[in-house]
Amino acid sequence: MYPPRKLDRRRFLVSGVAGTLVAAACRDPQPATVEPAAPTSSASVPPMLGAGRRPYGERSPFETAARTFKADSPTPGTGSSRTPLQDSLGILTPSALHFERHHSGVPTIDPAKHELLIHGLVERPLALTMADLRRFPSVSRIHFIECGGNSGREHEGRPGADPQQSHGLVSCSEWTGVLLSMLLREVGVTTAARWVIAEGADAARHARSIPLDKANDDVIIAYGQNGEALRPEQGYPLRIVAPGWEGNVNVKWLHRLHVVDQPYMLRDEAASYTDLMPDGKARRFTFVMEAKSVITRPAGGQRLAGPGHYEITGLAWSGRGRIARVEVSTDGGATWDVAEFAAPVLPKAFTRFTMPWCWDGRATTLRSRCADETGYLQPTRDELIAARGMTAGPDGYDHYNGIKVWTVAADGVVSHA
Amino acid sequence: MYPPRKLDRRRFLVSGVAGTLVAAACRDPQPATVEPAAPTSSASVPPMLGAGRRPYGERSPFETAARTFKADSPTPGTGSSRTPLQDSLGILTPSALHFERHHSGVPTIDPAKHELLIHGLVERPLALTMADLRRFPSVSRIHFIECGGNSGREHEGRPGADPQQSHGLVSCSEWTGVLLSMLLREVGVTTAARWVIAEGADAARHARSIPLDKANDDVIIAYGQNGEALRPEQGYPLRIVAPGWEGNVNVKWLHRLHVVDQPYMLRDEAASYTDLMPDGKARRFTFVMEAKSVITRPAGGQRLAGPGHYEITGLAWSGRGRIARVEVSTDGGATWDVAEFAAPVLPKAFTRFTMPWCWDGRATTLRSRCADETGYLQPTRDELIAARGMTAGPDGYDHYNGIKVWTVAADGVVSHA
Repeated sequence: MYPPRKLDRRRFLVSGVAGTLVAAACRDPQPATVEPAAPTSSASVPPMLGAGRRPYGERSPFETAARTFKADSPTPGTGSSRTPLQDSLGILTPSALHFERHHSGVPTIDPAKHELLIHGLVERPLALTMADLRRFPSVSRIHFIECGGNSGREHEGRPGADPQQSHGLVSCSEWTGVLLSMLLREVGVTTAARWVIAEGADAARHARSIPLDKANDDVIIAYGQNGEALRPEQGYPLRIVAPGWEGNVNVKWLHRLHVVDQPYMLRDEAASYTDLMPDGKARRFTFVMEAKSVITRPAGGQRLAGPGHYEITGLAWSGRGRIARVEVSTDGGATWDVAEFAAPVLPKAFTRFTMPWCWDGRATTLRSRCADETGYLQPTRDELIAARGMTAGPDGYDHYNGIKVWTVAADGVVSHA
Repeated sequence: MYPPRKLDRRRFLVSGVAGTLVAAACRDPQPATVEPAAPTSSASVPPMLGAGRRPYGERSPFETAARTFKADSPTPGTGSSRTPLQDSLGILTPSALHFERHHSGVPTIDPAKHELLIHGLVERPLALTMADLRRFPSVSRIHFIECGGNSGREHEGRPGADPQQSHGLVSCSEWTGVLLSMLLREVGVTTAARWVIAEGADAARHARSIPLDKANDDVIIAYGQNGEALRPEQGYPLRIVAPGWEGNVNVKWLHRLHVVDQPYMLRDEAASYTDLMPDGKARRFTFVMEAKSVITRPAGGQRLAGPGHYEITGLAWSGRGRIARVEVSTDGGATWDVAEFAAPVLPKAFTRFTMPWCWDGRATTLRSRCADETGYLQPTRDELIAARGMTAGPDGYDHYNGIKVWTVAADGVVSHA
């Protein structure tokens, strides 16, 4: 503490600084300026002793961001939870707010009793305990995981009202574990091996076929998430992280890897997670999530306080590598400005973009588009429908990645276009 | 779920694979191999419906990593909490386990009532609400914060028994906020301005003087931590993040920035946080935390299960930029091997290193040393004492960064050297 604490803050009220700054802001968009608030008191809390220690901390009671839930059936615990992207900061999703999707609830697994069996077309089948896995050299990589059906309602024409409802089936974490390629070298796959079937320990025994090329590339057998063990909803104690591939492949509660000679045409490869095309045929094994972006703020469900400067910020990601460029349009797509990257740009990870914007108080639209390092450019909804039509698959529309448009009304209310 | 689930797993028990792999491991250290566990059942959980949804998730009840607390005085809530680095994964510290240090407890602050006052040698003083701050372009950067006194007991010769006790006053998060340089441009600092006094809203009104050069470089006025709002113990709703500088400068619960012409010789600049030198003089304003590393696993408090392969992993960090190299010695410092980086290498952030190691079952020592991109090499304890002597400051030894040695006994028990 150092003196003096008292000063006449009323001068901010009478100086007219607020109006001056806002007017200046709309002539010169850099640097951003804001309206100073009416000062109330010089301290928001009385000088009294605060709370004591907690061995494992919790968030402030003033913070209320939450996942929303959509039930699959009347059976408890079946369905999906969405990440509140409108509250997201940076490139990491708090583990407590990571999206989830499960068919038979979240199992409670004692890690001391959990094993990973690797067998099939291998020379030395192995059953590995969690302690065994911790003896292999590890990697820690920041990757997004996205449900194949994320933003499918945009394709359908029933857009979500806010970023959580429109794009909330994607999240990004630091994942720690062992590269699957290392475990496959350990067991020695035979020359006939082509695919790996990954199976979870949930009651549904969710399983997917993964090509050996991907398994030997960057797939992680992950036990860590954001610096600690996986959360139960994300597969505790062990899961597949298949960077850039649809969430369904990232098998949770992993307990078995079966090395085989062909894909097994499992439930989520035959009856679901296929993309129905206009000619009636279906694309199968469409693993990669293509480049996508969404403005998270200002976005649907929010309201601008009035004309003046705002940060436009959002997220972009690509299952093929790094995001190379994000552009933002605030005039209906007539002109585009290149946004800045506000955080490290990592492959197959959320990329946070930011752009200062001076709102003149008139109705308009906000949209973003991104390109990844392969040169792929995020399409418009019209372009995507021209290519894929309007034929929904058994679970709706998968792999939709069209440009998302938010509408700003003259009263500042932002909603989906 | 896909058939078949049953297979005769007893063959792993009778094949002798375990002994073969471990023996092979010590001849050829790459790739790492492990002892397969005795298989018990093919599933660790019965196929029953799991738990339902949670709007805001929690960790598994099987996970128990916790901060430890050291009280400063009989007054509740004064003291420090340490991060359990032995449980750390990757480069991020879970917010719930971030170290903390406070003088008068953790205040409960309503963000709707909180303001940041910027005044003093400025042209346009401002009082900014949290909503105002969210209108500026943001940055999100991963940085460590380390208490100036971290690992001081190593200097003193009373080393901590495990990584938490020896080095647990350091953590690493993704911080989101506004660059202080942008806010200073907004208020227009005058030509006489040289320092910024940052003051917290805790009862102690903790404050520090920050040189204008640093303020204009990379200091963040942060409202976000690991993808959500700051945790209360880390300064909710607003704090200073002064990348690479001792923790005490990273003022929490920030409510005032006073732009002035000189440092204010505050309590933690005169009575504390100075480094007493052998000649009786004290180094003041020693802000930067120099390069340091510590092996977190295997480390004190752990026990190796027996001869065979293990991952040696740990953390390195430097307040001057990126870590350039980490080396590990398993033979008393006679030879050193270059460790691999297991995660992205970012400036002024935790860097995770990993090295495979085959333990032959004999007593030995483990140690790491790091170099940063400026060429600075982490010193030994002897080198550090030769330079700074054994004269403790008022709070013990600050800025100790000597090489940490762990001892491995023949029975596998790891302890401090």
